[in-house]
Amino acid sequence: MGVTGERLRSYIERIERLEEEKQALADDIKEVFAEAKGTGFDVKVMRKIIRMRKQDLNERKEEEALLETYMAAIGMI
Amino acid sequence: MGVTGERLRSYIERIERLEEEKQALADDIKEVFAEAKGTGFDVKVMRKIIRMRKQDLNERKEEEALLETYMAAIGMI
Amino acid sequence: MGVTGERLRSYIERIERLEEEKQALADDIKEVFAEAKGTGFDVKVMRKIIRMRKQDLNERKEEEALLETYMAAIGMI
Amino acid sequence: MGVTGERLRSYIERIERLEEEKQALADDIKEVFAEAKGTGFDVKVMRKIIRMRKQDLNERKEEEALLETYMAAIGMI
Repeated sequence: MGVTGERLRSYIERIERLEEEKQALADDIKEVFAEAKGTGFDVKVMRKIIRMRKQDLNERKEEEALLETYMAAIGMI
Repeated sequence: MGVTGERLRSYIERIERLEEEKQALADDIKEVFAEAKGTGFDVKVMRKIIRMRKQDLNERKEEEALLETYMAAIGMI
Repeated sequence: MGVTGERLRSYIERIERLEEEKQALADDIKEVFAEAKGTGFDVKVMRKIIRMRKQDLNERKEEEALLETYMAAIGMI
Repeated sequence: MGVTGERLRSYIERIERLEEEKQALADDIKEVFAEAKGTGFDVKVMRKIIRMRKQDLNERKEEEALLETYMAAIGMI
């Protein structure tokens, strides 16, 4: 195998190892959600809270206010 | 904060930490691809090789043979 | 081209035509959002309203109530 | 409902109608694949052929040649 082959293989193997680790973390996340669900928590609402906690507080407040304005404007509330 | 709040918070914080680690690995993978691209490798073809290496060899051979049969049947080759 | 080839080609061509029509609709949707954005509406909030309108009203109300309970439990409100 | 509300509602209803049509086409595509599968065709390979037919022929040939070069370089063939 020439230099190029070795270099290509090393890139590929590095990526494969990282992808394996990433998959293991994805499985861990699934497990924690399953554990939380098992103790009665609602996974869909938990995911929503996690998304909200990533958002900037002001940005979130503005969005919520605009949502209410739109909902009122089209008669949803 | 009651027991439920503490338990919910701990699940959420565990998931957030795992998601952060997972995002860091995704960034690492992007970096390795960028490094490989920088030395002249084609990222799209590298991704295809990584997908192929995950496949069972016989399954892959069968699929390739079937692909050729279909391509011939509709005049692509 | 044998019967199989003709039958395969007809399935493929039917799917390709349907996918073209589907892509055209996706482009139309993008255009309507762009038009709405052009007149000052917030696309992200519009998408949220469209998702909410698909949900069963009671289910949505329950989810919102649970969200508030969780947010209070972990001190977000 | 003010002018804004009416305008917002009309954008939302136009998008909802387009999304319904798009979903109907997605269901039609699924049906054609199911029909093809029922007569013995392999859906995964059909999808691959449809992707290939979208690609520019020269681009596809170059990609295939590069794939073989990489596979040889790392001892896959």
